[in-house]
Amino acid sequence: MRFGRQLRIGLNDLDEVIYGTAILASGGGGDPYLGRLILMQALQKHGPATLLDPAKVNNRWLVVALGAIGAPTVALEKFPGLTALAGAVERIEQHLQRKVDALVAAEAGGLNAVLPIALGLRLGLPVIDADGMGRAFPKGDMMTFGIYGGRAAPVIVVNDHMNAVIVDADDNRAAEELGRNAVVAMGGLAMGAIYPMSGKFFKSAAIRGTISLSRDIGRAALAASREKRDPIDAIIGYFHNQRKKARYAAKLFTGAVTRCQPKTGGGFVRGAIDLENSISGETCAIEFQNENLIVRIDGRIAALVPDIITILEEDMGDAITTENLRYGQRVTVFGLAAPDLLRTSAALEVVGPRAFGIDLDYRPIEVLKGS
Amino acid sequence: MRFGRQLRIGLNDLDEVIYGTAILASGGGGDPYLGRLILMQALQKHGPATLLDPAKVNNRWLVVALGAIGAPTVALEKFPGLTALAGAVERIEQHLQRKVDALVAAEAGGLNAVLPIALGLRLGLPVIDADGMGRAFPKGDMMTFGIYGGRAAPVIVVNDHMNAVIVDADDNRAAEELGRNAVVAMGGLAMGAIYPMSGKFFKSAAIRGTISLSRDIGRAALAASREKRDPIDAIIGYFHNQRKKARYAAKLFTGAVTRCQPKTGGGFVRGAIDLENSISGETCAIEFQNENLIVRIDGRIAALVPDIITILEEDMGDAITTENLRYGQRVTVFGLAAPDLLRTSAALEVVGPRAFGIDLDYRPIEVLKGS
Repeated sequence: MRFGRQLRIGLNDLDEVIYGTAILASGGGGDPYLGRLILMQALQKHGPATLLDPAKVNNRWLVVALGAIGAPTVALEKFPGLTALAGAVERIEQHLQRKVDALVAAEAGGLNAVLPIALGLRLGLPVIDADGMGRAFPKGDMMTFGIYGGRAAPVIVVNDHMNAVIVDADDNRAAEELGRNAVVAMGGLAMGAIYPMSGKFFKSAAIRGTISLSRDIGRAALAASREKRDPIDAIIGYFHNQRKKARYAAKLFTGAVTRCQPKTGGGFVRGAIDLENSISGETCAIEFQNENLIVRIDGRIAALVPDIITILEEDMGDAITTENLRYGQRVTVFGLAAPDLLRTSAALEVVGPRAFGIDLDYRPIEVLKGS
Repeated sequence: MRFGRQLRIGLNDLDEVIYGTAILASGGGGDPYLGRLILMQALQKHGPATLLDPAKVNNRWLVVALGAIGAPTVALEKFPGLTALAGAVERIEQHLQRKVDALVAAEAGGLNAVLPIALGLRLGLPVIDADGMGRAFPKGDMMTFGIYGGRAAPVIVVNDHMNAVIVDADDNRAAEELGRNAVVAMGGLAMGAIYPMSGKFFKSAAIRGTISLSRDIGRAALAASREKRDPIDAIIGYFHNQRKKARYAAKLFTGAVTRCQPKTGGGFVRGAIDLENSISGETCAIEFQNENLIVRIDGRIAALVPDIITILEEDMGDAITTENLRYGQRVTVFGLAAPDLLRTSAALEVVGPRAFGIDLDYRPIEVLKGS
């Protein structure tokens, strides 16, 4: 279904898409419950969404990446909504004096992967089956669009009062920092538009097939659940059976949360999670900055950013975003090889462990498994 | 000279203008030394500047207010310069898709009153003999353009790396706060453009004649100095002899600095200054937030914001900006009635004592004198 054919997302696909995007998010990407609500309302109002195959994007189009920016813990109380996101697109158009031709998700995540779909339905704009991270990351300059030479600015952020801040800076890190700084001043969460780019550049740098992959993951897991099979095994099976597109996926740990103390500050939520398996006595420690960055099992490293580390409910296999994790909760830690575009040396400089202050070289999850 | 005729400012007028703008600044408005240097270089390169009489501003023009924004203590080490200010004007033009027709100073001050003159020479744009405060204030929403109904946004700030942040918000206070927040993130000082407005609105709200008044003040004081008369008495005489335009002016205190501890934070420099007269034993306490806000002499209030409170060197009568005041320095505290446009009830809501957290009703300096 993923390439060459149109991807249609209707109300029947809603749960599958949300399930899958949350799996890819590595603990971030925004609250899937919120994403589900927003996409459901848009689908109810406008009918099914048709996502565009990235290969069909016109070279001369203006494509822009969208997402909610800020600390996810704020999102639960104060959510700017689609009107603010539409405002961000409008500001990009005003600033560049050009109409936006297509929207794409800034990152894969329960909220951020589907916001552009809902907005595309509202504005009648094409939304591309892709994203700029293949997972979620805490910073806008960690997108493949930046890693592979794109310019983040103008970065637009709009809050729930429709106050807008437009950042223009040649340096992507400066643009991201000034944008995030504005988000903090705006109350901690805002809607953002970033990396306005040509269709040609988009195709050179995007992570393709994000929404169709999410739908496929969700479909495999939810079918397994209905048939009383293990949904996480079904997801792992799905990734292993993709032939050329196969990706290493594994259960890294199963146990209960013994410590989880996120701290929100500077536009991020940071902290560490400790898990324990009461039968084997094994322990698992995870560090995060919005997204999960490193897993250690009994002190041994089991996965490192940019590989995907997602914490799932033990039974249903639903992904749990970092801010929703609770003491005592029984979970499985799921690991998934990052897309190839995140594993190049150029990418690892920007999204490898050291970019997050972890003084370790990146080692792929499938290599760590054998070590 | 002030009305009906063109005001020409050449190298011969430089010291007079800088002296006068610094007197009006109430302790803020930026470093006069820096203002002198920048204006001198511009006059040397481009020849004399001709300032436009506010009455001659075309109703349909686009006028924009300019100034350096941030904590003045930062300015000494890291100054963005005219290229950044030109960048701010360019961004306003891009954002509004319209050429700017004339520049005006955001505030009166040793630096900020003359920056637009230097930029006008460079860009070949008219600069109006006026400003938006008649003195200096710590916040952009304290301009008469805001008090009398104008919209601050889009607020543009550009730093020394030419990074730009554009803030758009209907609420002037929100626009100011988001702009200042960006300035802090940009290193503490940036060049700003604010209140893009029609010529018609400009004429309804501007404080007129700022540069000619500054030149006249400087002329009176420097002539007195050359003739071994007291420059501060000469300034006071100048204000008292203006017939319809007469303003109350007085020496409030003379003594030495016994305490001065400014703290920079959140884009401001705040603190208190204590003075003592070693002969009379009288003490004087001044509170400031970038600009001087209140003077107490032996506990009795002698002047309150928005009236102008400027600390002058005892001998030459040069104004000293708050950040340049030093322990032991011998000074005179000079008080000057604020322009009428700052004394209306609408203005006092925005620039009266309570706007600065001082729990007192405003009383005019000439009334306090008799109390």
